[in-house]
Amino acid sequence: MNNFTFYNPTRIIFGKGTETRVGIETAKYSKRVLLVYGGGSIRKSGLYDKVTASLKEHGILFMELSGVVPNPRVSLVREGIRLCRENKLDFILAVGGGSVIDTAKGIAIGVPYQGDVWDFYDGKAQIKESLPVGVILTIPAAGSESSTSSVLTNEDGWYKKGTGSDLMRPKFAILNPELTYTLPPYQTACGAADIMAHVMERYFTNTQDVDFTDRLCEATLKTIIANVPLAIAEPDNYAARAEVMWAGTIAHNDLLGTGRDQDWASHKIEHELSAIYDVAHGAGLAVVFPAWMKYVYKHNIQRFVQFAVRVWDVDQGFANPERTALAGIERLKEFFRRIGLPVTLEELGVRDDRYEEMADKCTMGDTFEIGGLVKLKKKDVIEIYKLARA
Amino acid sequence: MNNFTFYNPTRIIFGKGTETRVGIETAKYSKRVLLVYGGGSIRKSGLYDKVTASLKEHGILFMELSGVVPNPRVSLVREGIRLCRENKLDFILAVGGGSVIDTAKGIAIGVPYQGDVWDFYDGKAQIKESLPVGVILTIPAAGSESSTSSVLTNEDGWYKKGTGSDLMRPKFAILNPELTYTLPPYQTACGAADIMAHVMERYFTNTQDVDFTDRLCEATLKTIIANVPLAIAEPDNYAARAEVMWAGTIAHNDLLGTGRDQDWASHKIEHELSAIYDVAHGAGLAVVFPAWMKYVYKHNIQRFVQFAVRVWDVDQGFANPERTALAGIERLKEFFRRIGLPVTLEELGVRDDRYEEMADKCTMGDTFEIGGLVKLKKKDVIEIYKLARA
Repeated sequence: MNNFTFYNPTRIIFGKGTETRVGIETAKYSKRVLLVYGGGSIRKSGLYDKVTASLKEHGILFMELSGVVPNPRVSLVREGIRLCRENKLDFILAVGGGSVIDTAKGIAIGVPYQGDVWDFYDGKAQIKESLPVGVILTIPAAGSESSTSSVLTNEDGWYKKGTGSDLMRPKFAILNPELTYTLPPYQTACGAADIMAHVMERYFTNTQDVDFTDRLCEATLKTIIANVPLAIAEPDNYAARAEVMWAGTIAHNDLLGTGRDQDWASHKIEHELSAIYDVAHGAGLAVVFPAWMKYVYKHNIQRFVQFAVRVWDVDQGFANPERTALAGIERLKEFFRRIGLPVTLEELGVRDDRYEEMADKCTMGDTFEIGGLVKLKKKDVIEIYKLARA
Repeated sequence: MNNFTFYNPTRIIFGKGTETRVGIETAKYSKRVLLVYGGGSIRKSGLYDKVTASLKEHGILFMELSGVVPNPRVSLVREGIRLCRENKLDFILAVGGGSVIDTAKGIAIGVPYQGDVWDFYDGKAQIKESLPVGVILTIPAAGSESSTSSVLTNEDGWYKKGTGSDLMRPKFAILNPELTYTLPPYQTACGAADIMAHVMERYFTNTQDVDFTDRLCEATLKTIIANVPLAIAEPDNYAARAEVMWAGTIAHNDLLGTGRDQDWASHKIEHELSAIYDVAHGAGLAVVFPAWMKYVYKHNIQRFVQFAVRVWDVDQGFANPERTALAGIERLKEFFRRIGLPVTLEELGVRDDRYEEMADKCTMGDTFEIGGLVKLKKKDVIEIYKLARA
């Protein structure tokens, strides 16, 4: 086990009807708020009315920034920064999924920073300060509601990049599983793939002696595997929605990554897909992750055997670990397929003419190796895209 | 799943050599500190010298309060409160195990309170304020290093009682598994029983639809079961000590209890043993818990079947769930025995002449029912002591 620090002060407020507490929680920090959300879905569902009523009830002035899209854009973040500065807003309230929260976090670090906010995502500046952020989560997926990170897309060149700091953990996150009843099956499935990927990026490690966090990872994956099909079959199954929502937060608050090297190659490989083709992040991960696994499993076969046996209940073939490992990967792929996700680039509508370009961006012109379990160069990334093709 | 809030802002600083960071972490809060510890063990081990050197290096003035004993006394807490008030100390640094930390927490809530600190433990006052507390942990057991609670013993009548508040979570907890190398096997085993009890008090619930936290509980128990025997056999096995230490913290920071009713009858039943006979808390729990299980398992037999199958890998006898449930309880008892703990009151040196008195205190003269899974009256508690006898 590696040395680590773990600090996660986000206050989780979980359960039915909890969105009505947004006013009282926000008022602890500020009375001048920027409310960030996506399209019209929170208006249709009535959530917008509840949230604004609660803010008004607690005497909170707010302005709005809507129009956040999946693979959220840095341009909107810049607009949010301008709004905050011009109107002296000093708290960002995100109502939505990961894209909305990541936008809110970008605004929060951008307001007190002199330069352009993209500097943080481009690795040119370090986060030293952030406005406080609050969250009402409507999509369990990104884990951004209590994570340290934000991922944005820069339209100037279509780069998708992330930044992170403990300073970016939201002050509170309101998680009401009822708000996820209206998620379409495909979006629920994409969320599941994202949650599972957050666990697996941590699970596949070369760090020795990580028994406890291994088991926590396995517990989280099994929860998703058991409950997501239920949530898809019965969209208003509170129990299943609640399991997925809470597991989704824990999957990415980094408890599961404590004391271990992490991988994150699959996320980087997927980011290039999302940046160019604007595919749903979870769908991209469902395609990339099994391909990545097939490319690297020989490097640490016992870890893939453990994954197969403990997570997927594959019968352990002691005489043939490779077969066991491959069976685990196949089960993962089957699961993604079963919940309605694409598992090949073809299904995703991605053609094979830009693999080289994506691999090049992903490795910054082959100057940078990605991944913790196995260091991957540009040529490796191309091979993984090829494995994912069909 | 029940609605819940979860807020755990303790900064965990985990790993080799981390105790040298105590000065820099403490200086974030205060330069006038009360250093609390137990007997001479931290002097013998050299930890005292490291800690005081680090405090001095960061210009921190400190006074000392030593002599904390297992089942820590409220009288010493009162002395600490006096020291803080007279010397304007406003940060409490605990170096030790649960008794030391609980003492520090008692002092921290007592200083800003006008009345007597026991009021909080007796249920006569609510915690509204606390001085900040920092921890260097030397015994993985109580989980107090990031929990909301403190348990003290009042010598005036030998009452052992707990109090709790989110305000009592330490600001930081330094966890270096190397500091636990010198723990004798018996103390390591007592710690294991305490950690397992913290999980089991949460695991045995009637709340439905708690799949995720069930699995997290099972992961934590399996980690303890796998690693404690290793830590006892090889006291300086870093990997095993690290697993136990991290699992011990998570076992009691209440992540595992989110969204579920909890039990806590066994802890209350044990507290009466510790209060009168001054037995080690973990040893008392090893005796009480299996007896409690035998007394209540019929109330929710499927939960005990799940415990047997998932935690202890008992072969599931579908035709005879009762046998499966009982096998799980027996495995727990065997485990406690295997790591050198007593499993009967006789072994603990407790005679049967005071069962009634203890049961009476435990239920406040039979006016108060204890336990979440099954509500227990005085007569039930007596039966559990009887089951635990031999």
